[in-house]
Amino acid sequence: MAGAIAYISRDTDGVLWKKVLEAGLGPVDFRRLDALGDKTDIEVALAWKPASGLLASFPNLKLIVSLGMGVDHLLSDDKLPDVPITRIMDDGLIGQMSEYALYWALRHHRDIDKYAASQRARTWKVEDFVDTIHRRIGILGLGTIGQDTAKKFAALGFPTAGWSRTAKSLPGVETFHGRDGFRRLLAGSDILVNVLPLTRETRGILDAKAFAALPKGAYFINMARGGHVVDEALLAALDSGQLSGAVLDVFNTEPLPADHPYWTHPKVHVTPHIAGATNPRTASPGVIENIKRLRRGGELMHRIDPKAGY
Amino acid sequence: MAGAIAYISRDTDGVLWKKVLEAGLGPVDFRRLDALGDKTDIEVALAWKPASGLLASFPNLKLIVSLGMGVDHLLSDDKLPDVPITRIMDDGLIGQMSEYALYWALRHHRDIDKYAASQRARTWKVEDFVDTIHRRIGILGLGTIGQDTAKKFAALGFPTAGWSRTAKSLPGVETFHGRDGFRRLLAGSDILVNVLPLTRETRGILDAKAFAALPKGAYFINMARGGHVVDEALLAALDSGQLSGAVLDVFNTEPLPADHPYWTHPKVHVTPHIAGATNPRTASPGVIENIKRLRRGGELMHRIDPKAGY
Repeated sequence: MAGAIAYISRDTDGVLWKKVLEAGLGPVDFRRLDALGDKTDIEVALAWKPASGLLASFPNLKLIVSLGMGVDHLLSDDKLPDVPITRIMDDGLIGQMSEYALYWALRHHRDIDKYAASQRARTWKVEDFVDTIHRRIGILGLGTIGQDTAKKFAALGFPTAGWSRTAKSLPGVETFHGRDGFRRLLAGSDILVNVLPLTRETRGILDAKAFAALPKGAYFINMARGGHVVDEALLAALDSGQLSGAVLDVFNTEPLPADHPYWTHPKVHVTPHIAGATNPRTASPGVIENIKRLRRGGELMHRIDPKAGY
Repeated sequence: MAGAIAYISRDTDGVLWKKVLEAGLGPVDFRRLDALGDKTDIEVALAWKPASGLLASFPNLKLIVSLGMGVDHLLSDDKLPDVPITRIMDDGLIGQMSEYALYWALRHHRDIDKYAASQRARTWKVEDFVDTIHRRIGILGLGTIGQDTAKKFAALGFPTAGWSRTAKSLPGVETFHGRDGFRRLLAGSDILVNVLPLTRETRGILDAKAFAALPKGAYFINMARGGHVVDEALLAALDSGQLSGAVLDVFNTEPLPADHPYWTHPKVHVTPHIAGATNPRTASPGVIENIKRLRRGGELMHRIDPKAGY
């Protein structure tokens, strides 16, 4: 049998991953975090937030597969071994992320919380309606998730723009890039959706200046990483009315501590990092193909560049 | 000047309609409900829920334009004059209806209310996730609104089916028709969205038998007419757990009376008939074109068949 596959995650038990890998590869020496056995056997690690140094303890490791689309959880390990890193490319996860952004944007767009208040008061009251063509959506990050999200907003008739580090073009979506483009994207975003990768360049990018650059009363949806946001700046922008609300799925500390002000802030919706969960059904074909390529010496797909951070 | 245009609606003052009609037709003798003047002048009536007999009091009326996409509010007038009836065809309204259906379906699909409860308890708890490919959407009614809604659900990856009185086909959407097809559509709908026209045949179509035909725990979204629903049957299906919830935008009596059980039912979301509001910007081009055709003797677009009821 080929080398062992280690499943390094505290979130799920890996039963589904074992099943889909065996369906694609035949019998697999699948080792869970609590039963890694002889570490010299381990050839491939499927990893989500591994403890620092753990991956370096596998002397024959040949491939690290990030179980999330972001890889900041790996690159933060200063003992990360120098082997290829690939990430999952998961249509199921991408679709979930788009759903999440659409859901919260529509909630804001259609004044659902005001209607809920009217229902509690048993009051039949129609709110003023903002035409969809006047509700501008701005997407930070135009990787696969950002592109899918942007396309779906545009298909619903929202004027949609996106920003990325390097220039990109996308049919039906206005695109911006670079530092100057960042300010311009913000200035035209009634609803801002963050799907950036977390890198040295993007950490803390959503600071007081960024929130001030949004139109007054803008709405913010963060489904990328908590590290993009300067929490004090976000809370101040909410309290001043510069932002009308925020939806936060990701946090600087996860799980979000029970005493954090986000939990009880009247303008903040908190969800526990569920915007997109890796789905073995849709994520596994790429992983299986990469393990086959590794074993026969082919070129790996979906490799990340540790220097760029994504 | 040509004949007068009467604006018969208690919902809005018609200022926007006057403006868009004048932009398309030049000066218009525009009469509001509270200042109809000499009724013999009236050539065209734009109408939403006119009082019974009012339209019959305009002796020179040549065209009735329904200000909503449904025309049940006109056909219920037993003194309705025998002149052509057209309805608006409003891309803006259609888009709003789709937004409404997507919004509430995603809220149910993504367990948003459970996450809100967790937030109130400051608890970081991930709910089990239902894969989008396993959440079946059923659309009752495949007119322009139903087709647009079905297409948008399908584009998000939901298995989507639709039902109509007569056979229709729609790419990417499973279609059913007729009485037998009705039961089959219901049996496969985890989320049922009603956008049927209200006719003699569809009044009360959602009765105890219909709710019993849905899968256990199905979710119901009504954005068509209250008259489709037997309220006692819906409440019973909610209370028995046959339905997990309902979103109601339309009611047998509107405004919904303050003592109606829907307002306070823990499984019911009430909104005040706002799923789709006629938007003069997007609805007026067709109305303007029809008034021009009327005046030069051309064939009218978007005529409804009073016998079919839509």
